[in-house]
Amino acid sequence: MSPWQVSRRRLFGLAGAGAALAGAGAATGYGLSAAAGPGTGVIAFRGERQAGIVTPAQDRMHFVALDLTGTDRGAVGDLLRRWTLAAERMTAGLETADGDAVPANRYVAPADTGEALGLSAASLTLTFGVGPALFDKLGITDRRPAPLAELPRFQGDRLDPARSGGDLCIQACADDPQVAVHAVRNLVREGFGVTEVRWSQLGFGRTASTSTAQATPRNLFGFKDGTNNLKAEEPELLDEHVWVGAEGPDWLRGGTYLVARRIRMHIETWDRSNLDEQQQIIGRDKGEGAPLTGTGEFDPADLSATGPDGPVIADDSHVRLASAQENGGVRLLRRGYNFVDGSDGRGHLDAGLFFVAFVRDPQSRFVPMQRTLARSDALSEYLEHTGSAVFAVPPGLADGDDHWGRALLA
Amino acid sequence: MSPWQVSRRRLFGLAGAGAALAGAGAATGYGLSAAAGPGTGVIAFRGERQAGIVTPAQDRMHFVALDLTGTDRGAVGDLLRRWTLAAERMTAGLETADGDAVPANRYVAPADTGEALGLSAASLTLTFGVGPALFDKLGITDRRPAPLAELPRFQGDRLDPARSGGDLCIQACADDPQVAVHAVRNLVREGFGVTEVRWSQLGFGRTASTSTAQATPRNLFGFKDGTNNLKAEEPELLDEHVWVGAEGPDWLRGGTYLVARRIRMHIETWDRSNLDEQQQIIGRDKGEGAPLTGTGEFDPADLSATGPDGPVIADDSHVRLASAQENGGVRLLRRGYNFVDGSDGRGHLDAGLFFVAFVRDPQSRFVPMQRTLARSDALSEYLEHTGSAVFAVPPGLADGDDHWGRALLA
Ligand code: HEM
Ligand code: HEM
Repeated sequence: MSPWQVSRRRLFGLAGAGAALAGAGAATGYGLSAAAGPGTGVIAFRGERQAGIVTPAQDRMHFVALDLTGTDRGAVGDLLRRWTLAAERMTAGLETADGDAVPANRYVAPADTGEALGLSAASLTLTFGVGPALFDKLGITDRRPAPLAELPRFQGDRLDPARSGGDLCIQACADDPQVAVHAVRNLVREGFGVTEVRWSQLGFGRTASTSTAQATPRNLFGFKDGTNNLKAEEPELLDEHVWVGAEGPDWLRGGTYLVARRIRMHIETWDRSNLDEQQQIIGRDKGEGAPLTGTGEFDPADLSATGPDGPVIADDSHVRLASAQENGGVRLLRRGYNFVDGSDGRGHLDAGLFFVAFVRDPQSRFVPMQRTLARSDALSEYLEHTGSAVFAVPPGLADGDDHWGRALLA
Repeated sequence: MSPWQVSRRRLFGLAGAGAALAGAGAATGYGLSAAAGPGTGVIAFRGERQAGIVTPAQDRMHFVALDLTGTDRGAVGDLLRRWTLAAERMTAGLETADGDAVPANRYVAPADTGEALGLSAASLTLTFGVGPALFDKLGITDRRPAPLAELPRFQGDRLDPARSGGDLCIQACADDPQVAVHAVRNLVREGFGVTEVRWSQLGFGRTASTSTAQATPRNLFGFKDGTNNLKAEEPELLDEHVWVGAEGPDWLRGGTYLVARRIRMHIETWDRSNLDEQQQIIGRDKGEGAPLTGTGEFDPADLSATGPDGPVIADDSHVRLASAQENGGVRLLRRGYNFVDGSDGRGHLDAGLFFVAFVRDPQSRFVPMQRTLARSDALSEYLEHTGSAVFAVPPGLADGDDHWGRALLA
């Protein structure tokens, strides 16, 4: 019997969803593969925070920004409810059930598109956010928190509007790209008539570690990236730098903001610079990832150390200008991915970093840092920012919550 | 000591390269990870055939098509020699050595870009080919074998010239995308001044199995893809259908042709069709992948079986029209990948299949089949071919061969 010929929706209620899901898995032979070892695990969809933020960064990402096609608040709430149902199923390693069109027989469109059938949950997380323009469209302008505004133009920006902005976003991360793509595609499909894709970005390799248990990966400039990142194991620092506190509206308290920047990296030019130059520009050594004032990757950088030619970690180096010390104590949770999007029509690969950061306030925390980097960072010479977006990311769902937009859309 | 501060080039001679590589690995602490288990293995670069054809299809692909920037045959031969050196090192899990600019110290550009440092070989294969236009450019028009010609236009084609053609191609496949991207990027870099990127394509998930030891993956229409593919374990069939025999020129005998088609899949329309329709269109069932005349995935399709409404496997079904029976006995070795390249600017994902097939003669074997599919296949309604290219893929390198273009460029 084909799995498409069974509706599992009957098994699935809004309350006690976890138990129902486990039952669904068992009844149909789709086990929840939580015990299947690293890379095949299940990450809980519900919790105090949305998954996909401090979750140890998975290997692959598919990010999509969507625009509303209408102004009907009820339709949006309904979509968020269906997204929640589908997301909870998919992150558990089950097929999505399309709330409106579950096939009772083979003459109905399959509820799930099928390309992830037989694959595990692969640590899939789905992280949802709302963009600044959503509020006007839905007639709730007064509910837009002030920090949720498009970023200002920075020096050197060459933003493509077709890769920027968006009313809603979904960040899908997983250890298997097919699983991440499948999830986005099925959520996009669910949105048909209410949302349409504005832009989407595939990331093939993580460029950050978000847990002390992870090895630090390398970005396309060949440097370890994520060494001095905020980590899941530092809850006080996350409270200070990432989670929206009492300053935020109800629906966002305990949530965060997501800043996305699509940054083209001029790898050909970089590749012609010498090792010493590269290390001076970053402020760390390429092999080990140690600060130029130390020898081990996690040695703290000594920004005050000087040598015969001035500061050991140069004044215009990336790690100095991005450091907490130079940014009034600000730190970000970075969670970006490498991308290669074909070629640029001028003989080069279109490759770079899809920079994603989670931050408590994009305007007061990200903007000043990026302004400094755009103006003074020696690295900027090799970069071109081609996309930009900012989203508010509500907190996680408690058991029984049917979606994260209740308070927002009420 | 940073690995960038050592040149391993001294350890590496043209003859006996295998032994030298093993030595290099041991001497610098970069082991050849052949024994490290599935997904981390090393696939031999040299052999009777180029690797990456009957090699069990790896999970990820980065494909690049390059154009010559000049007409100097010597420069091309020299590049092929340097590509061979670099490819042999990278497929063994070592950094590339740039034949011209190995850094003796940190004031020289690193020979390797570094982003794959610490990663295993990940079953990397690098497969090289030459396109039809190369011959005129290098003044060797008379050496172009007749089957190496751009494909004719097929019904419904919407080819983008910026995603089609090319004088040279490199297919990099690996189980880690960072390894495949790293390899292409370093070979592109090596080509600076002789070649430039014409187009490049990332594939995130394989859509074919090329060995009976592999499970059949699914494409973005949710169907198992690769079931009735030619497999590595069928050498007589490969001789018959894939490898160029006595009919080909010296430099190509024992090689093959690569046909690439970038096929956009209209997944939104597909997703609205019902399960029965989908299964009729393919001619197989979605869950198991069995032909509609059988129950097991590998049951042979019975194209003559009829039911109350006519043939069980419909006249316009994909597997009938692509079958050997309907194509004068012709079979292909398919080795394609799923892609998602952002969105199309009209609210949809730009997703599909990067179709790659290896075939003994593209004109007499691929063209008639694709002509039939383009005209009559019920699947075509959901497809749009947006890129096309054909390359001749010389046989593998014997020990001591410095590159595969000697006879061709002499
Ligand atoms: C393609 C662009 C970029 C590249 C290649 C890059 C690369 C790096 C590297 C190699 C490090 C050192 C290792 C580490 O601690 O993670 C680093 C650190 C950092 N980067 Fe970036 N980065 C890029 C863009 C940005 C942007 C746009 C921001 C924020 C506006 C940013 C903020 C940071 C921060 C906060 C640190 C930690 C600094 C510290 O040590 O305190 N980076 N980056
Ligand atoms: C996006 C486009 C395509 C999709 C989604 C697709 C999908 C499939 C599927 C699901 C099968 C059945 C399973 C299998 O045996 O692998 C199949 C078989 C096959 N396809 Fe395709 N295919 C596509 C394009 C093409 C093209 C362009 C060609 C060649 C011109 C082709 C040639 C074949 C062949 C030779 C078979 C085996 C038929 C047999 O059973 O003898 N396909 N394809």
